[in-house]
Amino acid sequence: MPLRIGISTGGGDAPGLNAVIRAIVKYGVGQYHWQVVGIEDAFDGLLESPRRLQTLDLRSCKGILTLGGTILGTSNRGDPFAYPDPDGKVTDRSAELVSAIRDEGLEGLISIGGDGTQKIALRLMRDHDIPVVGVPKTIDNDLSATDVTFGFMSAVQAASDALDRLHTTAEAHDRVMILEVMGRDAGWIALQSGIAGGADCILIPEIPYDVNRLVDKIERRRSLRRYFTIIVVAEGAVPAGGEAGASPGPSPSRRLGGGRAGVAVAEALTERLHTDDIRVTVLGHLQRGGTPIAFDRVLATRLGVGAVDLAQEGRWGEIICLHHDRIVGLPIEEAVAVYRTVDPDGELVRAARAVGIEFGG
Amino acid sequence: MPLRIGISTGGGDAPGLNAVIRAIVKYGVGQYHWQVVGIEDAFDGLLESPRRLQTLDLRSCKGILTLGGTILGTSNRGDPFAYPDPDGKVTDRSAELVSAIRDEGLEGLISIGGDGTQKIALRLMRDHDIPVVGVPKTIDNDLSATDVTFGFMSAVQAASDALDRLHTTAEAHDRVMILEVMGRDAGWIALQSGIAGGADCILIPEIPYDVNRLVDKIERRRSLRRYFTIIVVAEGAVPAGGEAGASPGPSPSRRLGGGRAGVAVAEALTERLHTDDIRVTVLGHLQRGGTPIAFDRVLATRLGVGAVDLAQEGRWGEIICLHHDRIVGLPIEEAVAVYRTVDPDGELVRAARAVGIEFGG
Amino acid sequence: MPLRIGISTGGGDAPGLNAVIRAIVKYGVGQYHWQVVGIEDAFDGLLESPRRLQTLDLRSCKGILTLGGTILGTSNRGDPFAYPDPDGKVTDRSAELVSAIRDEGLEGLISIGGDGTQKIALRLMRDHDIPVVGVPKTIDNDLSATDVTFGFMSAVQAASDALDRLHTTAEAHDRVMILEVMGRDAGWIALQSGIAGGADCILIPEIPYDVNRLVDKIERRRSLRRYFTIIVVAEGAVPAGGEAGASPGPSPSRRLGGGRAGVAVAEALTERLHTDDIRVTVLGHLQRGGTPIAFDRVLATRLGVGAVDLAQEGRWGEIICLHHDRIVGLPIEEAVAVYRTVDPDGELVRAARAVGIEFGG
Amino acid sequence: MPLRIGISTGGGDAPGLNAVIRAIVKYGVGQYHWQVVGIEDAFDGLLESPRRLQTLDLRSCKGILTLGGTILGTSNRGDPFAYPDPDGKVTDRSAELVSAIRDEGLEGLISIGGDGTQKIALRLMRDHDIPVVGVPKTIDNDLSATDVTFGFMSAVQAASDALDRLHTTAEAHDRVMILEVMGRDAGWIALQSGIAGGADCILIPEIPYDVNRLVDKIERRRSLRRYFTIIVVAEGAVPAGGEAGASPGPSPSRRLGGGRAGVAVAEALTERLHTDDIRVTVLGHLQRGGTPIAFDRVLATRLGVGAVDLAQEGRWGEIICLHHDRIVGLPIEEAVAVYRTVDPDGELVRAARAVGIEFGG
Repeated sequence: MPLRIGISTGGGDAPGLNAVIRAIVKYGVGQYHWQVVGIEDAFDGLLESPRRLQTLDLRSCKGILTLGGTILGTSNRGDPFAYPDPDGKVTDRSAELVSAIRDEGLEGLISIGGDGTQKIALRLMRDHDIPVVGVPKTIDNDLSATDVTFGFMSAVQAASDALDRLHTTAEAHDRVMILEVMGRDAGWIALQSGIAGGADCILIPEIPYDVNRLVDKIERRRSLRRYFTIIVVAEGAVPAGGEAGASPGPSPSRRLGGGRAGVAVAEALTERLHTDDIRVTVLGHLQRGGTPIAFDRVLATRLGVGAVDLAQEGRWGEIICLHHDRIVGLPIEEAVAVYRTVDPDGELVRAARAVGIEFGG
Repeated sequence: MPLRIGISTGGGDAPGLNAVIRAIVKYGVGQYHWQVVGIEDAFDGLLESPRRLQTLDLRSCKGILTLGGTILGTSNRGDPFAYPDPDGKVTDRSAELVSAIRDEGLEGLISIGGDGTQKIALRLMRDHDIPVVGVPKTIDNDLSATDVTFGFMSAVQAASDALDRLHTTAEAHDRVMILEVMGRDAGWIALQSGIAGGADCILIPEIPYDVNRLVDKIERRRSLRRYFTIIVVAEGAVPAGGEAGASPGPSPSRRLGGGRAGVAVAEALTERLHTDDIRVTVLGHLQRGGTPIAFDRVLATRLGVGAVDLAQEGRWGEIICLHHDRIVGLPIEEAVAVYRTVDPDGELVRAARAVGIEFGG
Repeated sequence: MPLRIGISTGGGDAPGLNAVIRAIVKYGVGQYHWQVVGIEDAFDGLLESPRRLQTLDLRSCKGILTLGGTILGTSNRGDPFAYPDPDGKVTDRSAELVSAIRDEGLEGLISIGGDGTQKIALRLMRDHDIPVVGVPKTIDNDLSATDVTFGFMSAVQAASDALDRLHTTAEAHDRVMILEVMGRDAGWIALQSGIAGGADCILIPEIPYDVNRLVDKIERRRSLRRYFTIIVVAEGAVPAGGEAGASPGPSPSRRLGGGRAGVAVAEALTERLHTDDIRVTVLGHLQRGGTPIAFDRVLATRLGVGAVDLAQEGRWGEIICLHHDRIVGLPIEEAVAVYRTVDPDGELVRAARAVGIEFGG
Repeated sequence: MPLRIGISTGGGDAPGLNAVIRAIVKYGVGQYHWQVVGIEDAFDGLLESPRRLQTLDLRSCKGILTLGGTILGTSNRGDPFAYPDPDGKVTDRSAELVSAIRDEGLEGLISIGGDGTQKIALRLMRDHDIPVVGVPKTIDNDLSATDVTFGFMSAVQAASDALDRLHTTAEAHDRVMILEVMGRDAGWIALQSGIAGGADCILIPEIPYDVNRLVDKIERRRSLRRYFTIIVVAEGAVPAGGEAGASPGPSPSRRLGGGRAGVAVAEALTERLHTDDIRVTVLGHLQRGGTPIAFDRVLATRLGVGAVDLAQEGRWGEIICLHHDRIVGLPIEEAVAVYRTVDPDGELVRAARAVGIEFGG
């Protein structure tokens, strides 16, 4: 009997989500004759009344390979075990969710999402016997179980393109320009895009920075008649001994989709360089959106196919990963437990330092 | 006798500056055997000691057609008639500039810049008999003398690309997303990119907005099951009867290369929609940098060639313009006097309204 | 009573077709409550049995602004007055078409297409009293009635991007590289993309070329240590006194979506330069596809809105054009009669020559 | 004593070559105070008189990270052990090369190139005691010693972008469209870009194709009302039991930078489908040129840094590779001996089949 499977996408969007959905549908429906049900807005589509579900067939996949975002929508409220109602009160609605899953005849879930989403999936399986398979999604690439997550290289490409643009302006105006990119706990996007975009300084959460080292770098460049400097700052970068990013900031900064870390660097440099001409660009949502690059489309397709295989083989409780360029299933439990942050002494940071990039620490 | 001509680029950079320089050099040097001297950082290169000048020959043009920024650098200090020294005191250094021009044997200047730059050029000509030819540059496209300025369509393209990216995220997250683009006094970039990027609302300086109309638009969309809304805001957009953008804002906003107009809209919507989930992206310097699109490369080339013709024909005091797709020289005086803002009742706004775009007024 | 209107798209596709359709539907349906019927594959959808028609409402427009091609499909068979059946026999099926139009209750047609399509529309109106409004479409930009056609600048951008890519390879390998672009009778794409992409030579139908002038150009460049040369060739370019493009060529060339003009130049140069290392790239379908650039999305939107206005005002028999940046309706009859080719003595060719581009004549 | 090192780039260009050169110079010169000498046009710059060499210092690296091609130029003649003179006669000029290397005081060579180049390097080392370090370059990604080669993903991205463009045209015109990409012996570019670009069929050298299976695929799609089909063909793809690509073809095909494999498929399909409407696009040089994507810039930087480390540590005779995402040195001899072709039963082909892609075998 072909399976009847639900798919959901949880957490922030990442380029490639639709490519994963497409691969699951094309393979599951096309070859195993699954019935695939798309659950809208993470699990919200099963908790609301009326339920918001989409039957996903081969026609649903038309044109979505190249599409950013997710055709299923996503949700940041999300956790059915601690679900906020409109008044902000939090209740455990997992029992409702479980009965909705059963009521819809779903024999398994494929849950595409970050560690929060995967922990929910795991708990649904453990506490309520809902069969789940996971597909990891984190644009920050901070999951040690998988070599690289889909969407990450698209975000790096977007940040690198932004650096190419800022370069010409910085050079024309003899300016220090700061680009703030995503990365609250892991600096992968800043690190890779900074190398790719020819940044002069890269500030990441893993290496607290001393602003004096940035000042030195800027002045050394000036002495070589390089009057501009490009700094990439991960949103989680902090000064050594300080917590610039952690202090309660003014509201514009939040509205502006971040900016606190970049502004903190700008303020510190302004003070020391006695200039008022340092500018911060916050890449924000421009990193997440847009069509996935080819790399991510291929990766997302492989992961989607792998997820179908896991479900078809009854390997519930596993999450599909890329390990040494091979697609493998690992226990969700293991996969979500370990983060991968940038190793300050690792080869990639060393290569960046070798080409003259300053990390501020 | 071939001419010896100085070129300078003043004000903010715009994609196509290097294409103008290249055309002047290729034509002036290649066909009229001019000596061309690039003055670095607007007029600063003639005011500083030692002077910073570059001989521009055919080799200097290698690879610059595709390059954003300006190989000559630019300056925002700029006005030699009211030149700020490091202490902030302002002095008239025009006499110095004039003797430097004569000392360098420059028989004419081609001045590429906005209205501020052109007014300086004009004054150099009137008060000091320095022969000048102008090339208009304003990324805001707010000069009535010319159909369109180079760099403008590249900025529109950048903003439209950003909207494409924001679209998928807005849709995935059921969000109101605001993109702030350049345009202090004229809303051309917001208007054209908003139409091109499928925005739902466009706010421009020329049409003060009533936030209630935005709320209505958002709610009408929701009733049609369109749970996201994209708003493009020109940095000079203001609420009807108010001056949101004009009030002294918190420093992060300035550091962030703008954002005040976008944040004001976000705050106003937040209050009325009772949500905390509205995000602002400030495109900022990402609009100015990067390689010019083909349209701007062609336009910049035509203008550069036209400027050489003006100088060669001794038509000093003229600025090279595009009028009904023909290249013509006009008196600088006339050209810099008249701005072109968006006509709220014009065909372009009407077309935008026709496809359902709300202007808030 | 709201109108019931049919839309069709005829001839080769051009970036912006869907943006025109979207504007017509958003305005016609959204503001005048039209019923809009999309006819599939030009008029084929009305001639086949069962008919292939789509009701176009606001939902049909979701996501199509950015989409290349046409959601209605198109046809190259097309002419209902001389319609080829599968055996190649040609019959007049206009009477059938007219009764299908009446049978479907269509009170007017908006016909988006090139001169072939517009002539058919005109004949439907004259001979059969079918009310039609036209929207001009020619990627070659060879229609004198309108300043510029949608899709053209996207094609120029694609060709210019291709030249940027070829440049680096040509330079690395000291090579003559030839890019063949569209333009059977008019060289606009070659001319504009050649200027934008920094080509050394541009060959267009309007200026028959003498291959010796190309050889001279290549050798002059070599003497300046520029060992590579980039040549853009319109598919309709011909040698002076010859008809290289017109002779019956070998089949690969046709299969390859063109190439004859480019290959002819390569062969001629090979003979004279005694090298076997000249390469031709045929841009072909890569020029037509893909998302329209912002310029074309705005233009297409304005034209679509203008077409609705014409129909709503009963100005049947007119075609919507851009004239001196204003949207105007003109009699179809006048508009399709006059082609605009490149003026060999015009300002654009002169500007290209000024920056050193060789036309071969 | 700092080293004096020569760098050369050999074979076809690949996006990232300049990023490798930049990393070597920035690290070697900036941190080890090397003297770096760029040899122009592979080894030709040392064999010609006068020699063509460039001193590479930090200023030479300005702006080259984003630049396609190679600032050193390359050569396809290349082999100094069997060097063709202008008359086509081949002589061993290795002794001359070796004395030029010694004469210039080069204490080592870093040779960036494909297997041909590396074999020459190895022979210079073995036969003549010239210390060499290699950096692998093959846009085809067919070297088993390294996980992935720089430039490859940029080529995949270019091919995937081309497929996105062809898609809309194919769909608008109900057409079979064929894209021929690079890959004489290995189908990696076709495979990855085909998956990324949503191709319906992928033909690679490793899986000889039966055209009847393509016909079946096209007809199955038609029965599902999908009237267009996209086929990616590697230039080395051959029919089962046949040698379509190997037969002596007409000259246009060679001039057109390939096309034989794509045309062969088109001819075979034309015969069986009784249509004359199948089009081939040859991506050709558009795959090699242009700015490297971020992925390749990072990879190239890491490899350049690794090459400097090898030389600095005296590990001559090694080539720098990426193995399980770690940078390692391997004996050149081992590295060049083993090609990596697509495994017809491997996971990537299986994933492609899973989403419905037909390989024709």
